[in-house]
Amino acid sequence: MMEVYLDNNATTMVDPLVFDEMKPFLTNIYGNPNSLHRFGSGTHPKMLEALDYLYDGINANDKDDIIITGNATESNNTVIKGIWIDKILNGDKNHIITTEVEHPAITATLKFLETQGVNVTYLPVNEEGVLEAHTVRAYIKDETALVTVMWANNETGKIFPIEEIGEICKEMNVAFHTDATQAIGKITVDVQKCNVDYLSFSAHKFHGPKGIGGLYVKKGYELSPLFHGGEQMAGKRAGTVDVASMVGMGLAMKLATQKSAIDYEQTVVKGYRDQLETAILEIPETLVIGGKDNRTPNTTLISIRGVEGESMLWDLNQKGIGASTGSACASESLEANPVMNAFGSDSELAHTGVRLSLSRFNTQEEVDYAIEVIKAAVMRLRHISSSYAYAPESHNSQL
Amino acid sequence: MMEVYLDNNATTMVDPLVFDEMKPFLTNIYGNPNSLHRFGSGTHPKMLEALDYLYDGINANDKDDIIITGNATESNNTVIKGIWIDKILNGDKNHIITTEVEHPAITATLKFLETQGVNVTYLPVNEEGVLEAHTVRAYIKDETALVTVMWANNETGKIFPIEEIGEICKEMNVAFHTDATQAIGKITVDVQKCNVDYLSFSAHKFHGPKGIGGLYVKKGYELSPLFHGGEQMAGKRAGTVDVASMVGMGLAMKLATQKSAIDYEQTVVKGYRDQLETAILEIPETLVIGGKDNRTPNTTLISIRGVEGESMLWDLNQKGIGASTGSACASESLEANPVMNAFGSDSELAHTGVRLSLSRFNTQEEVDYAIEVIKAAVMRLRHISSSYAYAPESHNSQL
Repeated sequence: MMEVYLDNNATTMVDPLVFDEMKPFLTNIYGNPNSLHRFGSGTHPKMLEALDYLYDGINANDKDDIIITGNATESNNTVIKGIWIDKILNGDKNHIITTEVEHPAITATLKFLETQGVNVTYLPVNEEGVLEAHTVRAYIKDETALVTVMWANNETGKIFPIEEIGEICKEMNVAFHTDATQAIGKITVDVQKCNVDYLSFSAHKFHGPKGIGGLYVKKGYELSPLFHGGEQMAGKRAGTVDVASMVGMGLAMKLATQKSAIDYEQTVVKGYRDQLETAILEIPETLVIGGKDNRTPNTTLISIRGVEGESMLWDLNQKGIGASTGSACASESLEANPVMNAFGSDSELAHTGVRLSLSRFNTQEEVDYAIEVIKAAVMRLRHISSSYAYAPESHNSQL
Repeated sequence: MMEVYLDNNATTMVDPLVFDEMKPFLTNIYGNPNSLHRFGSGTHPKMLEALDYLYDGINANDKDDIIITGNATESNNTVIKGIWIDKILNGDKNHIITTEVEHPAITATLKFLETQGVNVTYLPVNEEGVLEAHTVRAYIKDETALVTVMWANNETGKIFPIEEIGEICKEMNVAFHTDATQAIGKITVDVQKCNVDYLSFSAHKFHGPKGIGGLYVKKGYELSPLFHGGEQMAGKRAGTVDVASMVGMGLAMKLATQKSAIDYEQTVVKGYRDQLETAILEIPETLVIGGKDNRTPNTTLISIRGVEGESMLWDLNQKGIGASTGSACASESLEANPVMNAFGSDSELAHTGVRLSLSRFNTQEEVDYAIEVIKAAVMRLRHISSSYAYAPESHNSQL
């Protein structure tokens, strides 16, 4: 049976070139980079090269920092708790602005800060699931310590107006953080152009290994570390650096962000996504959540009335296809997709979302196979769906 | 030229068996363990096996937690900041007890808490560099939220009386954390026998990969997470699990803690360490810092009067040998070894420490070579050392 992985927003395959790059550091080049001997210094050339790739990948200025972290969750916690400790606990500020559709690594951290007395504003998104930049301006006040807004949504792929928000934050002198986990490797990410002060990313979302990520920190915006300890990264993130994963992340960043890669995403990967989407939309009573405009090229979140997302995943899984109802990070809860709730979907519709997220490793053959399987699954599931059969508007619309 | 790695307290080579165990999860088994499809669930059997190995390795009870972290630094920060947030910020307690010779991951975190108004007691060690258990009892008060004491010292290898301290903390109802980073794989570590409530470790100190570690949390001692976010590990540590590294750490723990491995450490590795030590002690005006008793079998910290540690490392490095003056995590500072300061060494002696730390991958041939190189280096460096030449007590004692 063919296996087709369409869950690249949850995690990606490590690019074989990335694995080859990591391998020496998991075998013979094993020194601690902080050690003064040859075993330590032997790690340095490739670490420096990796850093260069990271800086290039997001167009960071040499004067800025990129801190190597364990993942974007750590990066997000570092910024939000750093702001809390440095700007809020001391009484300077007491307010953070975010959106209703952030990843749990942002929302759960902010919910925690609320238990510590911090005021948090969760800005609503429009009917397309996107924050409108002018909304931010209206909510910034003297006590606002941070604005944190995702670059692209993990569920819908919708791209947020980061450049406009960055401009507003700069003008109003408020620090601006963006979680770019779902943007890197899919669209151009440029921290200088967009006036970003902090930016988080995770390697495993762009064909690097799991367990490694980064945090861009603009010069002048340094924060207390989340990990106190040794003097690694000039004290900004203690703990022995995971050399193999850092080197792997560097190459993964280069491979994912070079012009040819972004072009490939915007043409071939987008083409595959559009084929899948078009085929599903031919089925009656289906819709793309948030609409088709202004999305990352690899993602679609589709609602298929009468088909519960979980049941659909099960059918697809039986046929070798991996997909998702939304964020893997919340999948254990089986609650309705929070993004679909944010859209104000009715409660039935909120359980009908299926997210398909592609990558440069998908093929035309896989897409053809997936279309066939998905169509058959919808037919089967609608046939046995009591809610769909009894819904008057679905009369005569089964395949 | 032969290469001899004698800096295993800084980091270790990944065991080739561990690398083989990791490899599938860096290539074809790449799913997110939280995903509901076959790509996700394909990661589960080996992750569960790894967890079993971790529990067995420290004799944790099934009801307790072992949280997978990025390294022992993260584990240490999780405990100390968790205690701060849950027990201190709310006004319940305001005091933490530790020692003067902890790793920076403990001391720097506690120094940070001091800036937030927390009272920290740094207990002195005795002339052997070890905390005496009764000292802890004398300093525990009603406001004490945590006692944190390392299991074995990273510089000297001296083993602390964890069982006695655990007994005292249990009796006085104070939470007890131990950083066991330098103990696991060298001596038996048993959290139940020692009444440990929290225990930190890092895989890369026992021939696992860098970038992965663990935190044991006894049932009933749960804390606020350091990473808020997704529901991984039941919300105790958000962020996609680094499957490859977790699986590698599991096997590394098994290989390092099984009875045959501890026996090998206590006989063969200790034998090599003792050979090295004996050979160096034949040189006049040398001494083992902290004395020879009650140490991990792989470590010696030796002071060689008239020979600056840094110069010695340089000479050894030229001959292919990797050693250390102390913790790699502080090596960039070039300050005197803090452990030697704690001993009250005179300032000249404090710069003469050389730490040799072995592993099960060292061989007799390497030990023989290292002895030869070290003796020649001492002769050369004492010959050119002004401080040694002019020191009256060293008259006639040059090699």
